[in-house]
Amino acid sequence: MTKFQAEIDVMPKKEILDPQGKAVTGSMKNLGLPEIQNIRIGKHVSLEIEAENEEVARQKVDQACKSLLANLIMESYTFTIEAV
Amino acid sequence: MTKFQAEIDVMPKKEILDPQGKAVTGSMKNLGLPEIQNIRIGKHVSLEIEAENEEVARQKVDQACKSLLANLIMESYTFTIEAV
Repeated sequence: MTKFQAEIDVMPKKEILDPQGKAVTGSMKNLGLPEIQNIRIGKHVSLEIEAENEEVARQKVDQACKSLLANLIMESYTFTIEAV
Repeated sequence: MTKFQAEIDVMPKKEILDPQGKAVTGSMKNLGLPEIQNIRIGKHVSLEIEAENEEVARQKVDQACKSLLANLIMESYTFTIEAV
């Protein structure tokens, strides 16, 4: 069994309004950083997984995203995996 | 002025207990994925910034992280920047 480290980003879908991101974009102006725009805020999840190979690890992380980490109605996810 | 896309991860520091991550690690067992361990959950922020060059963009994103996006007592951040 090999240990892999997965780094997952779960973000609100483009079509979905992101009120937290909008609010923080407004705050950037007040902070003197008006050149920062279009902020979107989601989750970052890091985890370790033991699996026979990278393909199996990738499938299991995908299953974890679909069943628990992301709400596929409102969010999309991407992830990277590497052996540690 | 060039437009850059920044991708920022804000994570709870290693020394800090991450109760949300611990809870989700427990749920993985119930989901039939006990090989997933050590889950830590933070924020992912994506934003656009206009700047003269990458160095200036990097400094401004760093300033935004320090002053608003991350709580440096409990969280650490990393980011990548690329021109779009």
